[in-house]
Amino acid sequence: MAHKNFKSIEKTVFGRGSFAQLAEIVAPIRERNQQYFVYVVDHYFKGKALENQLQAQPEDVIYFIDVDPNEPTTEQIDQLRDEILATKGLPSGLIGIGGGSIMDIAKALALMLTNEGSSVQYQGLNLIKKPGVYHLGVPTISGTGAECSMTAVLTGPEKKLGLKCDWTIFDQVILDSELTASVPTDKWFYTGMDTFIHCIESRDGMLNNAYSFAYGEQSLKLCREVYLGENAGRSAENDDKLMVASLMGGLSLTYSEVGICHALSYGLSKIFGEKHCYANCLTFQHLGDYYPEGVKEFKTMLAKHNITLPTGLSANWTDAEITAMAHVAYNLPHMWNHAIGIDWKEKITLDTIKDLFRRL
Amino acid sequence: MAHKNFKSIEKTVFGRGSFAQLAEIVAPIRERNQQYFVYVVDHYFKGKALENQLQAQPEDVIYFIDVDPNEPTTEQIDQLRDEILATKGLPSGLIGIGGGSIMDIAKALALMLTNEGSSVQYQGLNLIKKPGVYHLGVPTISGTGAECSMTAVLTGPEKKLGLKCDWTIFDQVILDSELTASVPTDKWFYTGMDTFIHCIESRDGMLNNAYSFAYGEQSLKLCREVYLGENAGRSAENDDKLMVASLMGGLSLTYSEVGICHALSYGLSKIFGEKHCYANCLTFQHLGDYYPEGVKEFKTMLAKHNITLPTGLSANWTDAEITAMAHVAYNLPHMWNHAIGIDWKEKITLDTIKDLFRRL
Repeated sequence: MAHKNFKSIEKTVFGRGSFAQLAEIVAPIRERNQQYFVYVVDHYFKGKALENQLQAQPEDVIYFIDVDPNEPTTEQIDQLRDEILATKGLPSGLIGIGGGSIMDIAKALALMLTNEGSSVQYQGLNLIKKPGVYHLGVPTISGTGAECSMTAVLTGPEKKLGLKCDWTIFDQVILDSELTASVPTDKWFYTGMDTFIHCIESRDGMLNNAYSFAYGEQSLKLCREVYLGENAGRSAENDDKLMVASLMGGLSLTYSEVGICHALSYGLSKIFGEKHCYANCLTFQHLGDYYPEGVKEFKTMLAKHNITLPTGLSANWTDAEITAMAHVAYNLPHMWNHAIGIDWKEKITLDTIKDLFRRL
Repeated sequence: MAHKNFKSIEKTVFGRGSFAQLAEIVAPIRERNQQYFVYVVDHYFKGKALENQLQAQPEDVIYFIDVDPNEPTTEQIDQLRDEILATKGLPSGLIGIGGGSIMDIAKALALMLTNEGSSVQYQGLNLIKKPGVYHLGVPTISGTGAECSMTAVLTGPEKKLGLKCDWTIFDQVILDSELTASVPTDKWFYTGMDTFIHCIESRDGMLNNAYSFAYGEQSLKLCREVYLGENAGRSAENDDKLMVASLMGGLSLTYSEVGICHALSYGLSKIFGEKHCYANCLTFQHLGDYYPEGVKEFKTMLAKHNITLPTGLSANWTDAEITAMAHVAYNLPHMWNHAIGIDWKEKITLDTIKDLFRRL
């Protein structure tokens, strides 16, 4: 189709304290399948107050998952899926509570519970064959847009690429910014910058249009208020704003596309396991010739929050590592199409990309 | 529930020329029910180019409906429903092509095809008992937000009130601003102002929150560009912007509420059949003590586009007519709750409302 036909999150609750409505929201879904829910919760909340607020039923299964060392992998999803099906059979649905990685795990698991074989074979656009089970997302950090995107990004043996289809999108999200209050400040910054970069990349490319622009423009305005404005910094009001910014930034790129920073960042995550939002920041600072305004503003935000990003990383990388990262980035043509144009291969070669990595 | 859980439009296409994708989009739906589609199309397009671009199949039924004399009524919906079911049985779905009234007709019909009895009994929140048939909306004028709202507003024998529930919301919308190019300029203005007023009313009330505010703020920005900016006026670029503004204004009030202008405007439409957007404009100009900033900006827009709204209307109204309108407005407590507060009855009486009508 000439114009994308994009599916929305089915239902959305927004508001401080709205997480308390979780049990009530999922109650009508509990009669499905083997009548229990699987929770995937960021390990960070183990032993914290949230652990006692999960509103789980005795039959439910709760996984606390440590997402800090690595981005979610295809192997991890396959293993979890096999374990869940072998233990209690097909659940009524999945509840993901955490950051972007947990959102991706919940989305990918929901699909893989009903689609046979390894998730590796479904990395790409519209490769999934059947709808997944009901899945509900509760973001506890704002910025990745994973709460509204149609991609469950996974690192596989060969590529970092999402399971991307209409069925990936959450049936329900609960946007309760109270849950983001305890995010460590460095993560608050890096993850918020993911949204900022989404908006810049969405805007500065071929697929930009009035719809994606309007969402991106408002998201950028909110990012500026949160990170640069008179009342910049951590506050309940800014937590609300950043949660909306994340959603709107995600919707902006749903109808447009990400660009060069994300292509490179995927390489960095695939080869060195660098976390997505941090990898974006490491990369974006060096892309001033592609995104001049965006990078300038990004550096103002870094300065305002006294964040110093490491440079000179590439001095310790082997040529083989740089080549491997460049291959990952080069194999994301939708991003280059958008950022550079459909004739991007005339302007961007594997060597261009290697040189970009050497800037880091 | 403490926080609203709102359903989104299932799928959305945005883009100039995207209407051409209609046939492809509905193809998979055609196997449902009696395997034909009902089109409800604004009578305005009869004999115009659009009539040849409807992509209907021979089995489809096309109604051209003149919505100019009146807002949609419960009687009209019941009659259409009975006729459709008696002639060809339950259709696969409905396709509405037109302005807010046509959107409302498509949404209400979709529900009433599967819910027994008169639509009068379903005027209100969550009174509908069963999901309706698939319904697709193609707005041909921007501003009402009817493309995304959960209300199909109908004028009944006793009240003007919507069929309001999750199932009202469109399964699909096609946002093709090329279809709005031929809108007469007075309607382009009045309907655009509906969005402007949505945003002001959404913001200036108790239910305002970061989510509704962000949508309303961006919608207001777009309205300002279209009606007051350097490149104000009719253009392809502004048609795009106004279409996005309409959607975002609608989403803003989905998560907040309309206010005094809409309450009064409903009275004016119910008693005198005045069209919704025009009735809003007639009313809003006199509400400067409730919405000072909004009304000031509205008047700047009127002046910029050389629009003179009639005043002194109430001189020709009987006391019985004014009382009848005041009753309609008074019986919309959700609007007064939002605009004034839950103690609104201590501040607003039937007499206050009558006095507001006498300003017109």
